[in-house]
Amino acid sequence: MSQGATSAAVVSVGNELLFGETLDTNTAWLGRKLATLGIPVVRGYTVGDVAEDIGWAVRDAIQVADLVLVTGGLGPTPDDLTKFAVANVLGRDLVVDDRVKESLQERFREQGMDGVPPTAYDQAYVLSGSEPLHNAEGTAPGIFLRSDEAIIVLLPGVPRELKDIVNGSLLPHLERLQRDAPDRVWHHVIHTTGIAESRLTALLEERLADVSDEERLGVGLAYLPDVRGVDLRFTAFGPSRDEAFARMAPLVQSIEDVVKPYRFESDSGDLAEAVSQILRERGMTIATAESCTGGLIAKQVTGVEGASDVFAGGIVAYSNEAKIALLGVSILDLAEHGAVSETVANQLALGVADLMNSDIGIGVTGVAGPGGGTEEKPVGTVWIATSLGGEVEARICRYSGGREAVRVKAGQAALAAVYRRLVDSTA
Amino acid sequence: MSQGATSAAVVSVGNELLFGETLDTNTAWLGRKLATLGIPVVRGYTVGDVAEDIGWAVRDAIQVADLVLVTGGLGPTPDDLTKFAVANVLGRDLVVDDRVKESLQERFREQGMDGVPPTAYDQAYVLSGSEPLHNAEGTAPGIFLRSDEAIIVLLPGVPRELKDIVNGSLLPHLERLQRDAPDRVWHHVIHTTGIAESRLTALLEERLADVSDEERLGVGLAYLPDVRGVDLRFTAFGPSRDEAFARMAPLVQSIEDVVKPYRFESDSGDLAEAVSQILRERGMTIATAESCTGGLIAKQVTGVEGASDVFAGGIVAYSNEAKIALLGVSILDLAEHGAVSETVANQLALGVADLMNSDIGIGVTGVAGPGGGTEEKPVGTVWIATSLGGEVEARICRYSGGREAVRVKAGQAALAAVYRRLVDSTA
Repeated sequence: MSQGATSAAVVSVGNELLFGETLDTNTAWLGRKLATLGIPVVRGYTVGDVAEDIGWAVRDAIQVADLVLVTGGLGPTPDDLTKFAVANVLGRDLVVDDRVKESLQERFREQGMDGVPPTAYDQAYVLSGSEPLHNAEGTAPGIFLRSDEAIIVLLPGVPRELKDIVNGSLLPHLERLQRDAPDRVWHHVIHTTGIAESRLTALLEERLADVSDEERLGVGLAYLPDVRGVDLRFTAFGPSRDEAFARMAPLVQSIEDVVKPYRFESDSGDLAEAVSQILRERGMTIATAESCTGGLIAKQVTGVEGASDVFAGGIVAYSNEAKIALLGVSILDLAEHGAVSETVANQLALGVADLMNSDIGIGVTGVAGPGGGTEEKPVGTVWIATSLGGEVEARICRYSGGREAVRVKAGQAALAAVYRRLVDSTA
Repeated sequence: MSQGATSAAVVSVGNELLFGETLDTNTAWLGRKLATLGIPVVRGYTVGDVAEDIGWAVRDAIQVADLVLVTGGLGPTPDDLTKFAVANVLGRDLVVDDRVKESLQERFREQGMDGVPPTAYDQAYVLSGSEPLHNAEGTAPGIFLRSDEAIIVLLPGVPRELKDIVNGSLLPHLERLQRDAPDRVWHHVIHTTGIAESRLTALLEERLADVSDEERLGVGLAYLPDVRGVDLRFTAFGPSRDEAFARMAPLVQSIEDVVKPYRFESDSGDLAEAVSQILRERGMTIATAESCTGGLIAKQVTGVEGASDVFAGGIVAYSNEAKIALLGVSILDLAEHGAVSETVANQLALGVADLMNSDIGIGVTGVAGPGGGTEEKPVGTVWIATSLGGEVEARICRYSGGREAVRVKAGQAALAAVYRRLVDSTA
């Protein structure tokens, strides 16, 4: 085996995955992350909390891949068997790691507890010859080790904890190992929102028809849709980032103007973060008045670190009374146009910017469903207004999908509207 | 092998699953569906569009389960290899099925096409000795067959098509086979929140030590933690729900009083839904004043269908100005105790209930991080107050984890506090 890895296998452990009580999102997430390092996942296994099954999967995985990630079964309860199973397969002992032990003690001290509960002490045990990976989100550390055949990494199954360890220490470590690899795969991602995948595909394929076969050779393009938008991922192999990007350039340039109205810039792909960054750069603030989204937009904006600098405040105005009393929505307009109307959306946006003394106001009012729809305003109808320096703009959207999908799409569209206005206001 | 099945394995086929471009939701969905028939899924495999890998997974699956479901790779394109791989493993031929052929012809006629495109004709080929399962949502039929060792079912990977076949013909068919089966697995789930997994485990294991080995025999207990709480899942085999539950009863009863302060009742495991249901039953309303949780609690309560009946409104008061002007928080108390204090949390809860004219008010103020912590009030410090009919109660919590974890835990604790007060107020 070389220093780095050429292929990976993912073993997911947990009865809850097999019973369908928990959806395994880790395998797909790890697949995407490893792809950025040029390490394809070639096989996945899902097994229950059974030591023999975990052992079977790890043994098989070592034979087909030189990087094996095992997720789940690292907790302190009797059905957490991953460490025992893997130690058994590799013929290793379980030994107390002093750094992990200290960090556990500190953690429980912070929570005002005198000692570490006996069951939690299990978590200080790691495989002999391994290296613990710090978990800022929970008590179970990741475990990194090398056998003669593969790099083996044990990770907690809770996605938040797994992501913390992978982003925080595993990926940087693997990246260093991969640096010596001759050729690797490189990605360039463009985030879009506000356009359906089928429409975007049609527009882009038309453009790409003009790109020569020679220029397309070896450059991949994947459409990665989710409820908040579509990511375009370009892929090329090459010894360095610059060389790979040069090969992608003709394709990327050919679609640039088509994508522009829908594109946003954010490392994480989070539109709230993109909006917050611009607000921070310009010293501006935002406030939200939400009806059908019910606090979702406020939650997203305040989810970004340092939100207090840019978020002035928010109102979740579900009832007409709250809209009238707090946000100055006109009782006559409510009666004439209904709560789901352009007029009311505008008044919400202007009202909350006024109330919170912010530069920008968002007003969202709609029918999230499943009840409350009418022929004129069916479930999925949402009015979205944004005010910027007292000037208000509104648009109507009609979304399909369930209650949560309508809310998420409306929230994303509101943030996209703000983003677009901010970007355009300097153009 | 008996007529029915005692356990299942799921093989998921597709490069897009390994690269993480598509999230595999089929395995979890099939796991839940099969659980209702008492057929536990014992192993899952994810392989790429590689005939040898598909063959490997199917051979292994047949050895560990007597029902093997293979999803994906049934389409008409050159990388759809599932039928070839499975035919090879089982030593079967691929033969044209006249019913499938006719149904394909009809389908393309309906779409105004004269004949069936050559590539689509592949889909008329099925394994010899198999039975096609009608697919109302697409062109690829499911394929049902029995080998000496197992029932093997091939299903398309597109969730809509898979669900159509499973609900339409596979499940009814399996149900008939299962009727004669002697035993199946049953679950009983208890939702808890507000107690760490390690602490809950320690408390329960102490109790369970008093339960006789005879009573524990054949009853499983799994701890399923996530950031919002820990689910306890009891499992027992039995010919009927009543008999299985009777076997679980001694264990369930032995832990009942330990679990009581943390337990909540909700079919979905969603605490906001549990709170909403009680509010609805009693004709009561709730309002939220959130600082560090930033709209998260409002978002969760309004995420439950029919929220307008129980949710009066919410304020996201990030700034002191908003706390003072909108919610009547005392400027003197803010200066003396700081925004993260019992006094301010109480005033937020009372203030928002008053402003929104609701029966219940929630006030949350804390330091979500990563910045803003002090020695006295480190990151993770959160004051949570609830008012019920004008009587206010507050508690301080200290959470570990990142910004999002602190917010989610605080939101869950606030809802748990409301739930507990509502339940206790009738006890």
